[in-house]
Amino acid sequence: MTLEISILSNGLTVVSDPMPGLESAALGIWVNTGSRNEDPGEMGVSHMLEHMAFKGTATRSARAIAEEIEAVGGVLNAYTSREQTAFHARVLKGDVPLALDMIADILTNPTFEPPELERERQVVLQELGQARDTPDDIVFDHLQSAIFKDQPLGWPILGEEATVNAFNRDMLKSYMAGQYRLDGMTLIASGAVTHEEIMALAEDKCGGLNKGAVPPCAPSHYVGGDFREIQDLEQAHVAYAFPGLSNADPDYFVAQVYATALGGGTSSRLFQEAREKRGLCYSIYAFSSGFQDSGFLGIYAGTGESEAAEISAVIAGEMDAIAGNLTEAEVQRARAQLKVSLLMGMERPGTRAEQIAGQLFALGKVQSAAEIVAQLDAIDAAAVKRYAARVMQAGSPTIAAVGPIKKLESHPVFARRFGGILADAAE
Amino acid sequence: MTLEISILSNGLTVVSDPMPGLESAALGIWVNTGSRNEDPGEMGVSHMLEHMAFKGTATRSARAIAEEIEAVGGVLNAYTSREQTAFHARVLKGDVPLALDMIADILTNPTFEPPELERERQVVLQELGQARDTPDDIVFDHLQSAIFKDQPLGWPILGEEATVNAFNRDMLKSYMAGQYRLDGMTLIASGAVTHEEIMALAEDKCGGLNKGAVPPCAPSHYVGGDFREIQDLEQAHVAYAFPGLSNADPDYFVAQVYATALGGGTSSRLFQEAREKRGLCYSIYAFSSGFQDSGFLGIYAGTGESEAAEISAVIAGEMDAIAGNLTEAEVQRARAQLKVSLLMGMERPGTRAEQIAGQLFALGKVQSAAEIVAQLDAIDAAAVKRYAARVMQAGSPTIAAVGPIKKLESHPVFARRFGGILADAAE
Repeated sequence: MTLEISILSNGLTVVSDPMPGLESAALGIWVNTGSRNEDPGEMGVSHMLEHMAFKGTATRSARAIAEEIEAVGGVLNAYTSREQTAFHARVLKGDVPLALDMIADILTNPTFEPPELERERQVVLQELGQARDTPDDIVFDHLQSAIFKDQPLGWPILGEEATVNAFNRDMLKSYMAGQYRLDGMTLIASGAVTHEEIMALAEDKCGGLNKGAVPPCAPSHYVGGDFREIQDLEQAHVAYAFPGLSNADPDYFVAQVYATALGGGTSSRLFQEAREKRGLCYSIYAFSSGFQDSGFLGIYAGTGESEAAEISAVIAGEMDAIAGNLTEAEVQRARAQLKVSLLMGMERPGTRAEQIAGQLFALGKVQSAAEIVAQLDAIDAAAVKRYAARVMQAGSPTIAAVGPIKKLESHPVFARRFGGILADAAE
Repeated sequence: MTLEISILSNGLTVVSDPMPGLESAALGIWVNTGSRNEDPGEMGVSHMLEHMAFKGTATRSARAIAEEIEAVGGVLNAYTSREQTAFHARVLKGDVPLALDMIADILTNPTFEPPELERERQVVLQELGQARDTPDDIVFDHLQSAIFKDQPLGWPILGEEATVNAFNRDMLKSYMAGQYRLDGMTLIASGAVTHEEIMALAEDKCGGLNKGAVPPCAPSHYVGGDFREIQDLEQAHVAYAFPGLSNADPDYFVAQVYATALGGGTSSRLFQEAREKRGLCYSIYAFSSGFQDSGFLGIYAGTGESEAAEISAVIAGEMDAIAGNLTEAEVQRARAQLKVSLLMGMERPGTRAEQIAGQLFALGKVQSAAEIVAQLDAIDAAAVKRYAARVMQAGSPTIAAVGPIKKLESHPVFARRFGGILADAAE
């Protein structure tokens, strides 16, 4: 039993990923459209559409959708990212046909009834409020927006009050008709499934999806900048970004190893220096975030009002140091963490389906665990140091910060630590 | 291969829970002490001790602990709850001996070096700040404190600035010597393990743990009350509580079915009424929370400033209605959700180990999935309605609210909807 990929007669990509010994399955349809595919006036429409898909079809009311899946104890949910929208379910194996029937139904026959839209608009406005009350979450929206200034990839996934208030049924229908296209859809099922079952179900249920390709979205590029909002909070929530790599970049795993060694665990440089040695933070971490055609290296630190004076220099210092003296032992640890996290994720159907979706979107193929492990094993300290030097020299750091941040180092001063390209222009 | 429980020669309970087909394991030692076992001056000491366990042993520095587990890609972590403290690891199967060696070491030989304590004190103060910046999290601390007024079970797990600032090495050592006792410790390993392996490792590694029993803690009882803090937030974060059941109560699963039907999923009463029909909330849910000797039925709603005027009456109305007209179909759905969630949790070693720990603590035994399913299947609408009526009539509701909450119904008015016992006293 291994992963199989087929193209259905109508063009839908179908992936089955059987896992022996499981009694449950995770399955979903990933659509290659998200907030970066939106026009300015429709900011947040991908997310609103994702919500409205559950609000009734030609044959099921919103309540019937909720009751039908929960009657079998299943969970039907969805999420919108910047480049994809996913509709997925977790069910026992006997309920896979029901789950796929429901997912196909909400993607083929949503009615977008105006009264439902009015109610759901209020729910999304509440969701916007909740996001704004979560500073260690919303700071990443500000970061993204500063990195990809004036580009759809920088827009908030939830949209803004004004655009959310402007959505109507025609906008949803026309966005769906244009963006939800079979060439950009993938059905993925992991767990207690067989390829024959999934293919037969897909033939049966997915015939009504729209043919054709998703229109290309505008290319994105890292701009960088500075966003600060003083708020009456206990902590300064500070996010940093540096030019990074797309998900298709050959150095993708080099950047992952770098982010892990820099700030991926308790033995990482940032955790050891900022938390263990200096006690500046409870949370501090680094990550590499990629899209189709661009990406960034990100760092988050939650720190106190007075500690905020120190944190930027500490981070810049560690980034400078790691480019010079990263050891093979650190690279080995980072590789081990990434490998084990990969292997443990392979034991969970939901994680597997999501990883498959991400790889197909980025690379057009699925890599086996063995292939990924081989790529990781080929990475040595020299390769990571080259990448680390590239991050240091790229200039254009981005900072987004909310909270008691008056003492946080200015952007020009911070930027000078990284080549200072923006710094001199800004001063 | 099934679950086995043995008592080691020194008194340690050892549970192995093999899962065929897995390549990884979750294991840990659960200690039956937490924030409710603390004296007033030592509020937060359980949590501080949990942090300090990782800060160095007789043979390992803090850095060595971090590096050693991450060198094999493992994760070593801990958490403190109100009644238990857990030290646990996720590793590949070949690294189970290392993980147990490290867990036993940090529980047997921690040094609590004063310089490490000074630094970690700052980290915990940062953690306190982070918790206070998360309103949909901190509101539950206020709720717990109002429910269990002036009782250790109502104290914040993280402690308070003043107590955190007062901790010293002697306090940690004496708290550990008194509370970390073998009669109140359980070693649990789920996943790619065998009982022989775990027993042999436990004999080898766990000999240095302290014999004896954990001192009994003071009994707790539901008091109830009202906590409100106006804050400049986007949302009113409101948590409600009503007298509930201990984890050992024979009606434990009746309360779970009730909470699920009331607010456990998208087809639940609260979700349908407050979110789907009225658009008042993005998040609203109910849950049943239990301890050794008491418990509560809780509800959370995140709502807007003007919507806050309406939310309490909507919740009380749904609680009143469900006690009268809950249907067998709703009970079936709630049972199905709980069963499937249980069965899916059984596919994850970390979840299994945690469930085993909870059951052993509450019941002194481990229930199989089949036993739990049988208990759920025996619950009908009549039983749940009886429980719902009991919640309605118990009086003493508790409210905790932060954010723009000026329009939120007063506690006396709300309490009158539930028998009003506290209401009349308070007016």
